[in-house]
Amino acid sequence: MGMADIAEVLWNDYLRHNPANPHWPNRDRFVLSNGHGSMLVYSLLHLSGYDVPMDALRHFRHLGSGTPGHPEVGDTPGVETTTGPLGQGLANAVGMALAEHILAGQFNRPGHPLVDHHTYCFLGDGCLMEGISHEACSLAGTLGLGKLIAVYDDNGISIDGKVRNWFTDDTPARFRAYGWHVVEEVDGHDAEAVRAAIETARAVTDRPSLICAKTTIGFGAPNVCGTHGVHGAPLGDEEIQASREFLGWTHAPFEIPDAIYDRWDARARGNAAEAQWRETLAAYREAHPELAADFERRMAGELPTHFAEHAQAFIEKAQAEGGNDASRKHSQAVLNGFGPHLPELTGGSADLTGSNNTWWKDCSAVSAEDPGGNYLSYGVREFGMTAIMNGMALHGGLIPYAGTFLVFSDYARNAVRMAALMGVRSILVYSHDSIGLGEDGPTHQPIEQLPSLRLIPNLDVWRPCDLTETAVAWQMALTRTNGPSAMALSRQKLPHQPRQNDGIEGIRRGGYILREPAVNPQGIVMASGSEVGMAVEAADALEARGYAIRVVSVPCLERFLAQPTDYRETVLPAAIGVRAAVEAAVPDSWRALVGNEVGLVGLREFGASAPGDTVYEHMGLTAEAVVSALEQQLEQ
Amino acid sequence: MGMADIAEVLWNDYLRHNPANPHWPNRDRFVLSNGHGSMLVYSLLHLSGYDVPMDALRHFRHLGSGTPGHPEVGDTPGVETTTGPLGQGLANAVGMALAEHILAGQFNRPGHPLVDHHTYCFLGDGCLMEGISHEACSLAGTLGLGKLIAVYDDNGISIDGKVRNWFTDDTPARFRAYGWHVVEEVDGHDAEAVRAAIETARAVTDRPSLICAKTTIGFGAPNVCGTHGVHGAPLGDEEIQASREFLGWTHAPFEIPDAIYDRWDARARGNAAEAQWRETLAAYREAHPELAADFERRMAGELPTHFAEHAQAFIEKAQAEGGNDASRKHSQAVLNGFGPHLPELTGGSADLTGSNNTWWKDCSAVSAEDPGGNYLSYGVREFGMTAIMNGMALHGGLIPYAGTFLVFSDYARNAVRMAALMGVRSILVYSHDSIGLGEDGPTHQPIEQLPSLRLIPNLDVWRPCDLTETAVAWQMALTRTNGPSAMALSRQKLPHQPRQNDGIEGIRRGGYILREPAVNPQGIVMASGSEVGMAVEAADALEARGYAIRVVSVPCLERFLAQPTDYRETVLPAAIGVRAAVEAAVPDSWRALVGNEVGLVGLREFGASAPGDTVYEHMGLTAEAVVSALEQQLEQ
Repeated sequence: MGMADIAEVLWNDYLRHNPANPHWPNRDRFVLSNGHGSMLVYSLLHLSGYDVPMDALRHFRHLGSGTPGHPEVGDTPGVETTTGPLGQGLANAVGMALAEHILAGQFNRPGHPLVDHHTYCFLGDGCLMEGISHEACSLAGTLGLGKLIAVYDDNGISIDGKVRNWFTDDTPARFRAYGWHVVEEVDGHDAEAVRAAIETARAVTDRPSLICAKTTIGFGAPNVCGTHGVHGAPLGDEEIQASREFLGWTHAPFEIPDAIYDRWDARARGNAAEAQWRETLAAYREAHPELAADFERRMAGELPTHFAEHAQAFIEKAQAEGGNDASRKHSQAVLNGFGPHLPELTGGSADLTGSNNTWWKDCSAVSAEDPGGNYLSYGVREFGMTAIMNGMALHGGLIPYAGTFLVFSDYARNAVRMAALMGVRSILVYSHDSIGLGEDGPTHQPIEQLPSLRLIPNLDVWRPCDLTETAVAWQMALTRTNGPSAMALSRQKLPHQPRQNDGIEGIRRGGYILREPAVNPQGIVMASGSEVGMAVEAADALEARGYAIRVVSVPCLERFLAQPTDYRETVLPAAIGVRAAVEAAVPDSWRALVGNEVGLVGLREFGASAPGDTVYEHMGLTAEAVVSALEQQLEQ
Repeated sequence: MGMADIAEVLWNDYLRHNPANPHWPNRDRFVLSNGHGSMLVYSLLHLSGYDVPMDALRHFRHLGSGTPGHPEVGDTPGVETTTGPLGQGLANAVGMALAEHILAGQFNRPGHPLVDHHTYCFLGDGCLMEGISHEACSLAGTLGLGKLIAVYDDNGISIDGKVRNWFTDDTPARFRAYGWHVVEEVDGHDAEAVRAAIETARAVTDRPSLICAKTTIGFGAPNVCGTHGVHGAPLGDEEIQASREFLGWTHAPFEIPDAIYDRWDARARGNAAEAQWRETLAAYREAHPELAADFERRMAGELPTHFAEHAQAFIEKAQAEGGNDASRKHSQAVLNGFGPHLPELTGGSADLTGSNNTWWKDCSAVSAEDPGGNYLSYGVREFGMTAIMNGMALHGGLIPYAGTFLVFSDYARNAVRMAALMGVRSILVYSHDSIGLGEDGPTHQPIEQLPSLRLIPNLDVWRPCDLTETAVAWQMALTRTNGPSAMALSRQKLPHQPRQNDGIEGIRRGGYILREPAVNPQGIVMASGSEVGMAVEAADALEARGYAIRVVSVPCLERFLAQPTDYRETVLPAAIGVRAAVEAAVPDSWRALVGNEVGLVGLREFGASAPGDTVYEHMGLTAEAVVSALEQQLEQ
């Protein structure tokens, strides 16, 4: 209710959108970062003519209603991103504005403003208190995202009460410190003042704008407005009646007079706006046919026709030529191989470019002045980066990938979850993926991050063991259109593994027989990434003692578990109960495949600062430990 | 090397510490938030007379050296907190300064400044880019933590190069917007300028101070200083030689002339400072004997003598009187019961006080003006809150607990990890712990958070099913001195469970037989928290069909797995292979206890917005599903 007056001005007078086509590429994006006000956006969508019927509003927060408690992208036409976890909608909006900035730089040509839209974001105190607002807005300032206009609902109330006891920032000064343009002290219930503020914001094109709107929470509810009692709680019948009187609203609940529908209906205006842009696109196609085709392909989320071939050729060459290196370097080699065929690839790192190996030969930095690049120095902002990537992926036209150390996936965890929940294609490059990173010590050594990421539904976690597996992991992540993928990559060198062609297909299946003994196997050892070499070593040692051991490489547990039973049975026959798995992490992920406790060779404590080999030895993660885990079972 | 000149002034002229007693309660705290500069702090500790021998410096970043790659509390005397994950050291420092603020408010009396010390923090660009710096510093400003002095190493360089391309904040303006006192443009290589800045900062006592020191990274290394090549990489022999010449340093490596040791030695000064404070304490004891005893007890981390009795009485009463309620409300009842006996309990919430039920009857808010309270409105700042709690716990004298929704443990995850790594006693109150929260939908419904928290080594995760279990969980968390505990609490009401006294002891063991059939059990069903009632229901249904089923409640998997084998065998006899576990979460945690796949009744997808009961039903988490999981095994 507090932001309704602002929304009315923005949606009726400024927002360029088409209710009949919520996916029109050049529409303005609207994000409600304070997602608990979801009814506002449903009402706006309903009134302006989206396929959000009154019946959906009546069934607010009921199963399958299309009007969930927080806006969910995919559930409701016109909802651009899923919001609720505070601050992330704002970061998504920065990502959308950044995508617009980059695509405009890459595609626009003189006289052809193909990509040219605003991103509007509503946000509240909670968004501004969250650290991610700092990360995202600081970067938005540096990058000069002039088409981003955020409106701060400055109502002075959060759930615990009046914010003056825990939130006393001078927010305008803070945002000016980020290089933003700030419009202060706007009366959010005065349509003319709101209009003037939006005009001012739109006129400043070299910096993002923040409009600070003073509002009254629960405006219209005369007895509770301005209190935290109205933050997330229903008004109750009595107060609803009082509000109706206060606002002079005489219509029955869920009844809206035609005159109001007419005033709000944005369908004709939206169709006209899209039609005009379609003409721009047609002229662009005339002048720049290849660019236009690429733009349409990219906005449709399709990879180039020949990408599959290039990838396959790269993978086969990788298998043939091999080479021992760190998988983070293999990842860079893959980027060098795939990148030239994928102009939509948009890389970056949270200030660890050289360590994550995310920069490849054709990278060029995106900046305020030079928007057309394909690489972002996100700064030390893991959470902001990941949520910005979500926004870029939702905008379309780009496939974001970016790196940090695996342990710092913790910092970004809820944005990774949101990527998985929304099903966006973003690729998280996590290097330094184990105690093998060595000297930096326990704060930097992931122990629980791998199994922990695997718990997030709809996230694929890849941990490749050599160049071939790394290339296939990238291929899978890039071709996956319904969710994010994470890459866990080693700091240290890993041995190249020999394998046959069905091995390459096996990688795609997430797990496969890497090494088969000459006779029927008596036991199986599984591993991922940097421990695959250790598994092979253990199998060799056991072979020398007369045992036949199969080695199964499992670069992606999620993919493997999703295979048909018969494939899984081929790799892990029920008849072979002697099993072990080795991974430099808490071993819980492997219980589903191992089926006994002694076979779980992993880590259950934090690491230590020492050279990587020493830490492995110190923590008992060795080929001998794997041998012992299998021998105990073989000798029973 | 860049901050060495500043450190020299601070450590020699200002820092009040006693190398002979690194645990002196009233020492100044020093935090190196940019922990990758760990050698600086080791050198300072070595030179000033701590038990950090030259041999430890020689073995920098080697196993057991006491000089790990990043400073680790407990590894090295004088290291106050473990740093490395950027921004968290700064938040820890805020927590330490806040603890000082609160303790001074609670204990100081006119003429008796018992608690009166500074907290100094060094930090770099990386810390300032991280969102947590926003959360912690915004709150520090609101709370007016005047004894917090932070020194910003403004060297313009981060790992990716010159920060001007990704970090262009006007940092002084930003901090002034938080209400900080800022000393700008200090030449960090000019001792007099540094001294003047520290004096100015100390003179301002109603606000925290930020000293912005312009420094040259790698100062002294003439060919590489001021470049990112020197950020984390060794100088190499040639540059070391050049630096030696530049600095006029003619002594052999690791050799320090006696005159320098003499100048740095802080032992006499430190002993005198501590002795003086011991006199203050003695006078305080004379005037306020009970307060003094309480202060010493609290700083020693000991609970009051009679706490155990009070807790036991509460628990027995809880069991006898029972009552169905949400476990978040049970938690509040426990706080009301335990709180009056624990003045060190320092509560809070990330703006969800009413939902987390963290406020109990004797709570009073801590503020800038009124420091002596026991409750903090942290604002919507989950990560900052958790890292601030770590700093408070490290400071000593307080036991911090604070709440948010379980799903937002994600936001704070690395600070939870740091609590576990450092072994601090902090208590994380996570309410709304399942899909049972209902209408708020998938963004707010935890699915993977429970198993994911359980993966963090040294964290106890409690998920109580009724008032008795909730009280025991709190008792265990409060008496645990070597690590943090998390409480997963329901939004919805849960039924009270009957149990015998050995049941109460069983809760302490993390898992126990809650309900035993009249005849030998044929199967076991396990559960935690809100699904214990469902497990009982399923057992009843199976009993009606002629099966004897044991119900095992597992409020804390970590505690249960840490029990001796014979106890675990009593609860889960190997002979009973028919087993199921039910929990409203990804079921991976339970594989270790269930041993078969069909018995895992949990969730593998994100939730939905609808009333809680509907979501349970919709996702197939029902007593019938548990019955079916057991029947499939019983009928085989």
